[in-house]
Amino acid sequence: MSVAPSGSFVIGVDFGTLSGRAVVVRVSDGAELGSAVHEYPHAVLTEALPGGTRLGPDWALQVPADYVEVLKTAVPAAVAAAGIDPAEVIGIGTDFTACTMVPTTADGTPLDELPEFAGRPHAYTKLWKHHAAQGQADRINRLAAKRGEPWLARYGGLISSEWEFAKGLQVLEEDPEIYAAMARWVEAADWIVWQLTGDYVRNACTAGYKGIRQDGHYPVQEFLAELNPAFAGFVAEKLDQPIGELGDAAGTLSARAAEWTGLREGIAVAVGNVDAHVTSAAAQALEPGQMVAIMGTSTCHVMNGDKVATVPGMCGVVEGGIVAGLYGYEAGQSGVGDIFAHYVPPTYTHEQLTELAAKQRPGEHGLLVLDWHSGNRSVLVDHELSGLVVGETLATRPEDVYRAVIEATAFGTRTIVETFDRAGVPVREFVVAGGLMKNALVMQIYADVLKRPLSVIGSDQGPALGSAIHAAAAAGAYPDVRAAATAMGRKQEAVWQPDPAAGEVYDELFAEYTRLHDYFGRGENKVMRKLRALRRRAVAA
Amino acid sequence: MSVAPSGSFVIGVDFGTLSGRAVVVRVSDGAELGSAVHEYPHAVLTEALPGGTRLGPDWALQVPADYVEVLKTAVPAAVAAAGIDPAEVIGIGTDFTACTMVPTTADGTPLDELPEFAGRPHAYTKLWKHHAAQGQADRINRLAAKRGEPWLARYGGLISSEWEFAKGLQVLEEDPEIYAAMARWVEAADWIVWQLTGDYVRNACTAGYKGIRQDGHYPVQEFLAELNPAFAGFVAEKLDQPIGELGDAAGTLSARAAEWTGLREGIAVAVGNVDAHVTSAAAQALEPGQMVAIMGTSTCHVMNGDKVATVPGMCGVVEGGIVAGLYGYEAGQSGVGDIFAHYVPPTYTHEQLTELAAKQRPGEHGLLVLDWHSGNRSVLVDHELSGLVVGETLATRPEDVYRAVIEATAFGTRTIVETFDRAGVPVREFVVAGGLMKNALVMQIYADVLKRPLSVIGSDQGPALGSAIHAAAAAGAYPDVRAAATAMGRKQEAVWQPDPAAGEVYDELFAEYTRLHDYFGRGENKVMRKLRALRRRAVAA
Repeated sequence: MSVAPSGSFVIGVDFGTLSGRAVVVRVSDGAELGSAVHEYPHAVLTEALPGGTRLGPDWALQVPADYVEVLKTAVPAAVAAAGIDPAEVIGIGTDFTACTMVPTTADGTPLDELPEFAGRPHAYTKLWKHHAAQGQADRINRLAAKRGEPWLARYGGLISSEWEFAKGLQVLEEDPEIYAAMARWVEAADWIVWQLTGDYVRNACTAGYKGIRQDGHYPVQEFLAELNPAFAGFVAEKLDQPIGELGDAAGTLSARAAEWTGLREGIAVAVGNVDAHVTSAAAQALEPGQMVAIMGTSTCHVMNGDKVATVPGMCGVVEGGIVAGLYGYEAGQSGVGDIFAHYVPPTYTHEQLTELAAKQRPGEHGLLVLDWHSGNRSVLVDHELSGLVVGETLATRPEDVYRAVIEATAFGTRTIVETFDRAGVPVREFVVAGGLMKNALVMQIYADVLKRPLSVIGSDQGPALGSAIHAAAAAGAYPDVRAAATAMGRKQEAVWQPDPAAGEVYDELFAEYTRLHDYFGRGENKVMRKLRALRRRAVAA
Repeated sequence: MSVAPSGSFVIGVDFGTLSGRAVVVRVSDGAELGSAVHEYPHAVLTEALPGGTRLGPDWALQVPADYVEVLKTAVPAAVAAAGIDPAEVIGIGTDFTACTMVPTTADGTPLDELPEFAGRPHAYTKLWKHHAAQGQADRINRLAAKRGEPWLARYGGLISSEWEFAKGLQVLEEDPEIYAAMARWVEAADWIVWQLTGDYVRNACTAGYKGIRQDGHYPVQEFLAELNPAFAGFVAEKLDQPIGELGDAAGTLSARAAEWTGLREGIAVAVGNVDAHVTSAAAQALEPGQMVAIMGTSTCHVMNGDKVATVPGMCGVVEGGIVAGLYGYEAGQSGVGDIFAHYVPPTYTHEQLTELAAKQRPGEHGLLVLDWHSGNRSVLVDHELSGLVVGETLATRPEDVYRAVIEATAFGTRTIVETFDRAGVPVREFVVAGGLMKNALVMQIYADVLKRPLSVIGSDQGPALGSAIHAAAAAGAYPDVRAAATAMGRKQEAVWQPDPAAGEVYDELFAEYTRLHDYFGRGENKVMRKLRALRRRAVAA
């Protein structure tokens, strides 16, 4: 293994849902020397465009210019905070939410920046949690099943409405003029690298997980044409692009981007990556069976395996999707911390509710929740689902619901873990990253519900650290990402131990959860879809 | 018809859940001349006794001395407010929540007033919404069904945990010493009349609806002994008492009660009655098919019929239970306005939420609620059931849930109305009384969901006016309650008209409500019972 000079640094930039964070990391040992955060001025657009145009239910848009602001402000601020000489930075790596899609011209200009399209919702970037393309996803799934498309099993049998094809088909069918003007349909993870290098390289991770690229191929043209004749050229005209492997350099920093960031022109820029996947490196959890759960607003589960298996309802399995040489599995829960927040009444705080909820025994509140307020990503892959709370009485207090919601997300995680186990890709270690690892109540409940110890990542800034690790590999400071992770990543093992007595009560509650999960989630009672349909009809009227 | 002197007055006293209200009414035309309210100092005990003894889940107790305070304060205050001479009052009538049970000594002293029992929960009065006797109710129902007890059909097939037998059996089995000390097990409706006259007369209404007295008989001793050998003497030793018919005089005002109230000794005291049933007279809704819904904290439905029919899940049918000569039917919803209140977050008010919710179209919020937060009285008769909210997303706002809860109670009412219609006791007119009739949003939603016009009572104090009407009949000012109601009652017909377009959407939502209602309410999925059991176990641990 080569050893980088001790005076070398890399920068990782993590583009989250509401802000971007830059961290300066020492190449030799992964020490985090300084960081800075920049909040997106437009945050998430769910009600209306900046000009006032109203959006429908389940829409979630962003403005790509906000991402560039992160490069211009957070990167220099992190360098300043670290007190290093920017000339000693040898590489920059980025990670992004996904699937977040930017419609652009041929030169990468986002369509929302063209004056003639400023009032058109489909010209904006569709954030991962834009859930208004479920109708398109349903058709993709039905047709793929009917035609026996070979790639369907790689996604657990269901393509998500959050992904590139469903969202792209929605653009075509709801605003064909925007679709026609859209020369490229670009993952934000790649768009930001394009801004840094001046070249568009498509990363293997999102191409595989979100773009249905398997074994070097996308869905065939006949399939696309059967979805919609005007969609036949989607892959060839909008999507296909040379692939970059994770940990490789996508190119070098352009003069323009050097000016934005204050870094040296020509340093390595890593291939784009996804916040969850890049965290595996930071958590030193790249071996088969090490499941990393990045728990925050939502939870993403990533785990390597040494073979391909069909895991029902997983988000996908992609060769080299997390690290070269292994099969990367992904699963997820589309709402976690944001559901907790939804149940904090005015005049309460998370801290108060956590303290009150922590005094309870399992089962004491008498509640059971289905944590589908943002739909269900794994293992049902259905964003028409919605939340359910059962057991409420007039004696139910806010801390009761709060605890029940936390438990529900733990049951959702257990459902995922057990599905992997049953599919022959066993989970050997459960490693937590993300903001929720700081919440002792959440961690204890997860350990009790999962009935296993929890390890935690040794960094508060896992994705940014992971991106920095990829930057170090891309810059050639280490031979590959695994070597860089060994030197620069951090993990604390078995920090949270399960309480067997609590686990027994949770077994009983989990059985009830599973029954409701299957009843409402697998089509026996379609009331959640019916309610969404009635809502759309009422809003449209 | 005799006509009372224009200078004659009667007093109606309505004992509600949290307070008692006295109203002075003119006999000739029912004009309400003055009223006064007194709040019970102890309100409802749900957490602990006054001395600090903790209560279990689902308990709800009261202190009978609070009722006497109403006689001492609200009655003279109402007379003063009316500006009349108390000597011109010719009668007093009362109505009460039911089934609310006072354990007493042979002379009527409530057991909680005996110093040795002050710390014993079972010595206190069990309010109607004490729901901790469901286990006893379940056994009563199973045994009655097994033995083919003839009275079971008169209660729609199920006896409620709220009623005299389940609550009495709970006393026996949880505190046999209190049971032994309890010479009489008295409806509060009769206990207050006992305080006024000095004699214990049992009213035909609660004896029938709550005391399983049918065709002059209670359940037989063999049945009671099979429930629990020590319960064999329950009817003979604790319950049986001469019956008074509604509208008759139970006796005359005693010297002691004359001193309390400031009224003349010797005036007529009407037989005790129930708040809901007595309202039918005030609303001029005593004819077969006129259903009166008294909508407040909970809703009680009362309706006369000219024959006996078996209505599944009704509370009961009792000959002369509302007015002599007809069969009185009763049904109910155990939580209505109190569920609305449960969903008003801090910093919001009912008025704000009502205003916001009123702007929505049916279906717009995307929610569906089962309104069982206090269990389900009709038509499921199961207080182990609990609330359910489905459809929630992160976009759901407090006004959305608020409206959905109102709609849920309307669906619950529609379930009751349709059950009566199907059972051959058709509802011909729906008349609303109670505090919620002032809420235009609630009224419009009910009209839309029920798809029929709503009439409303012409008094804000329906029960007290009804009690006054009974007092007038008891005093002989009218030949019977029907004649008194014609002269003194008030109703406005078809005040709220249904919107057919809203009704169509509600038909769709009601179909979904009914499916959930049957799935969770009729035993297919017993998760609500399981959650209650786990809660009890956790609290007991």
